[in-house]
Amino acid sequence: MNVPASSTPSSGVEKVVQHLRARFDEDLEQVRAFLRTPSVSYTGQGIQETARQVAGFIRGLGGTASVVPTAGHPIVFGRLDQQAAHTVLVYGMYDVMPADEPNWSSDPWAAEIRDLPGLGLSVIARGAVNTKGPLAAFFRAVEAYRHVAGRLPVNLLFAIEGEEEMGSRHFLPFVESHREELGAADAVLFPFFSQDEAGVPSLTLGTKGILYFELECRGGDWGGPTERGIHGSNNAWVANPVWRLVQALATLVDEEENPKVEGFLDGVTPLDPAEREILRRQVESGLMDERPFMQFEHVRRFKGGLRGVPLWERLFGQPQFNIDGLVGGYVEEGTKTLLPHRALAKLDVRTVPRMDPDAVAAAIRRHLDAHGYADIEMRVLNNYPWSKVRLDEPAVQAMVETYQTMGRTPQIWPLNPGSAPYYVFERVLGIPYVTGGLGHGGRQHSTDEYCTVQGILDFEISMVRWMDAFSRRMDERKR
Amino acid sequence: MNVPASSTPSSGVEKVVQHLRARFDEDLEQVRAFLRTPSVSYTGQGIQETARQVAGFIRGLGGTASVVPTAGHPIVFGRLDQQAAHTVLVYGMYDVMPADEPNWSSDPWAAEIRDLPGLGLSVIARGAVNTKGPLAAFFRAVEAYRHVAGRLPVNLLFAIEGEEEMGSRHFLPFVESHREELGAADAVLFPFFSQDEAGVPSLTLGTKGILYFELECRGGDWGGPTERGIHGSNNAWVANPVWRLVQALATLVDEEENPKVEGFLDGVTPLDPAEREILRRQVESGLMDERPFMQFEHVRRFKGGLRGVPLWERLFGQPQFNIDGLVGGYVEEGTKTLLPHRALAKLDVRTVPRMDPDAVAAAIRRHLDAHGYADIEMRVLNNYPWSKVRLDEPAVQAMVETYQTMGRTPQIWPLNPGSAPYYVFERVLGIPYVTGGLGHGGRQHSTDEYCTVQGILDFEISMVRWMDAFSRRMDERKR
Repeated sequence: MNVPASSTPSSGVEKVVQHLRARFDEDLEQVRAFLRTPSVSYTGQGIQETARQVAGFIRGLGGTASVVPTAGHPIVFGRLDQQAAHTVLVYGMYDVMPADEPNWSSDPWAAEIRDLPGLGLSVIARGAVNTKGPLAAFFRAVEAYRHVAGRLPVNLLFAIEGEEEMGSRHFLPFVESHREELGAADAVLFPFFSQDEAGVPSLTLGTKGILYFELECRGGDWGGPTERGIHGSNNAWVANPVWRLVQALATLVDEEENPKVEGFLDGVTPLDPAEREILRRQVESGLMDERPFMQFEHVRRFKGGLRGVPLWERLFGQPQFNIDGLVGGYVEEGTKTLLPHRALAKLDVRTVPRMDPDAVAAAIRRHLDAHGYADIEMRVLNNYPWSKVRLDEPAVQAMVETYQTMGRTPQIWPLNPGSAPYYVFERVLGIPYVTGGLGHGGRQHSTDEYCTVQGILDFEISMVRWMDAFSRRMDERKR
Repeated sequence: MNVPASSTPSSGVEKVVQHLRARFDEDLEQVRAFLRTPSVSYTGQGIQETARQVAGFIRGLGGTASVVPTAGHPIVFGRLDQQAAHTVLVYGMYDVMPADEPNWSSDPWAAEIRDLPGLGLSVIARGAVNTKGPLAAFFRAVEAYRHVAGRLPVNLLFAIEGEEEMGSRHFLPFVESHREELGAADAVLFPFFSQDEAGVPSLTLGTKGILYFELECRGGDWGGPTERGIHGSNNAWVANPVWRLVQALATLVDEEENPKVEGFLDGVTPLDPAEREILRRQVESGLMDERPFMQFEHVRRFKGGLRGVPLWERLFGQPQFNIDGLVGGYVEEGTKTLLPHRALAKLDVRTVPRMDPDAVAAAIRRHLDAHGYADIEMRVLNNYPWSKVRLDEPAVQAMVETYQTMGRTPQIWPLNPGSAPYYVFERVLGIPYVTGGLGHGGRQHSTDEYCTVQGILDFEISMVRWMDAFSRRMDERKR
């Protein structure tokens, strides 16, 4: 896919890029320094100090920043007014997962540089890719832009939270209570290293929503033991809640896992024709290929035996109805017999446009009731909607242009098949968003998380080019 | 039910009973002493010492005994030849479960005596009821009989194993290799405290068999991740082994848990008309009542809404197809998403006369294959058949007579709904068996296992009366 660049990059941009290349050693050290402060949201370790650091970065750029308390960890809210015509809200996170995995090859808070086979020099640190590495590098890119060009082509707002790894539990209230300030932005940018190991960047045009719920069957008026598991031989005359949950679950989908719940698929909208065409070309050209996935994840066959274009259309275009976990009774080694008193299933539905997650939840409840399982308790643990961004949004087009300018053809993903609460931007604030930047890292949430050194520089350059491209495209749209 | 006692108890028996009453303090101390030696088959603690103690008891009675090694814990094999016309094989176990449950109110190996509400003075000890208490008391009853009457009315053989709590894993080979000696017995007696809390003894005329197996579904050529769980969002294009196992399980039974496996019920034989009539009378007279069970086990409704006679006929006359446990994926707190690579179910079938457990296993395998689940692995972990004893066997009739003589009307259970490997006696040796004796205890495998002090004396008396009655009834049968 080619995005026409109707105007050339501003002349100042190349000077900024030159400056970034020239002083990269200094930036690399600053990124590593930021990674050396732990900021573990689950334990609270270093959270306050890191929030203050982030606010300091913004102030150091000439902006204003406050560390806004929440019922959990604070959110850093900042502004960098450049008297520009357009404004970007930079969303980010300063928290990371714990680093208690075994066998780190160096201290996860040391940010040591090592030569990784096939990847080159890389920084090993918790947060290297997810996402303190890109966050720190973004601040350096902004600094360079201002240093060389005097000012940025856009105004920046910052909303950097400290609970992303815990489900962003206080971000929605923050956005709602800062709706006026944040809503002034023209687009949201989540700076992130988006290249895979082969160097191909990907760009998602939205994300599926998630409805995560539990179904619990307990003994009750219908039968079964109600208080505790009893001797297994009583199943001759007492029914089993595990069988009951199995029977109830089996009514929800067919043998191919297609939902049998009436109303489940209501609202499901086919992929946008333009995006579908892009997808087809990406698959047919080999830019998207399921074979590496099959090898890496040890999968031999996809649902329905699909391959190629129809497979990718299914991944992006269809919701899923997954069992994350199921448990009841005695599940250890050996031959203990038991008639259990309860069984529990954990399920998630990933919703696509334009499903209504509340309607899906209601449809499942109705289905269970209609099939005689009114006693089975349904507990919704998480529920937020899908969100979608148009490919022709200037923020998105600017990212594609940036990648192309830097010699990379991105994979365009119509949706992230996972889930992220970007509806906060799309629905609450009503502004489009984009996640991106060059750069590569890996092993998120795992031992020896890393990002490549080269990727940090490429990322900085891509952020400079994106700000310029976004500004130009916004200007063009207004004309 | 009345059992005609065609001859009166031998005159000597009453003297033995008098002697037991007179010297009971001494017997109680000896039973407590035996309970104070731990003999935990799972850990091996005290096993060898206790086996030697048991052999010593038999020799102390004037018999011969050897501690027979097995690939596991030894079996005590003994003989006490009394030049009698009939021989009883005493089956027993000297091992117990571990006593590592929390909150024992006194040391499980101290055998302290306490006054339990509603039960009276009781011995608190691991093994008090299951079954070192009755075993020790049985030896004391034999000793008293010989002391007063000079000799027993029957010869005794002893086969006392040390792995009952681990599934009697070396008992069958022992029996097979001692077939000639053991097969000389006319009946098997398993001495046990058989009264419930209300004082009603029960007598089972056999036991269901058990087919315990696992079904495991793993990702494979059919789909699913094959090596490890992967990110839950991949369920959009990769199938889920948990769903597959749920669907497979759901084909096995209907919503009332009735088996849908062709051939599953082959051979199931209705209850014997005489036993069925006894059952009817017991239920209608209130001797058997499901209400205490419902209260104690917290069950509000039985399968099919049954109550009364049809309910009890179901318990004794029908096999069961139980899920003991089911697990797959993420089953802890919270909303972690996962596409699991395996799911496991543990099931047990309790077979009734005259089902063939191997045929049942084969039918389940065929069913899974025919429904497209050939990939689901079936692992049989335990499999032994039902066994049945006729009510008119002298060993059984003698037990009924003993209970009646001592003022107790027993509940006759056509089958034990649980399972025990008594087929070893019925099928391998071809001799009938009976479990019984007065006495009461409870909390087997649990905190504060106990037996009542009064029950120990009643048990001793019942064993003396049973030996006498069995001998007479065997004599009568021969005439």
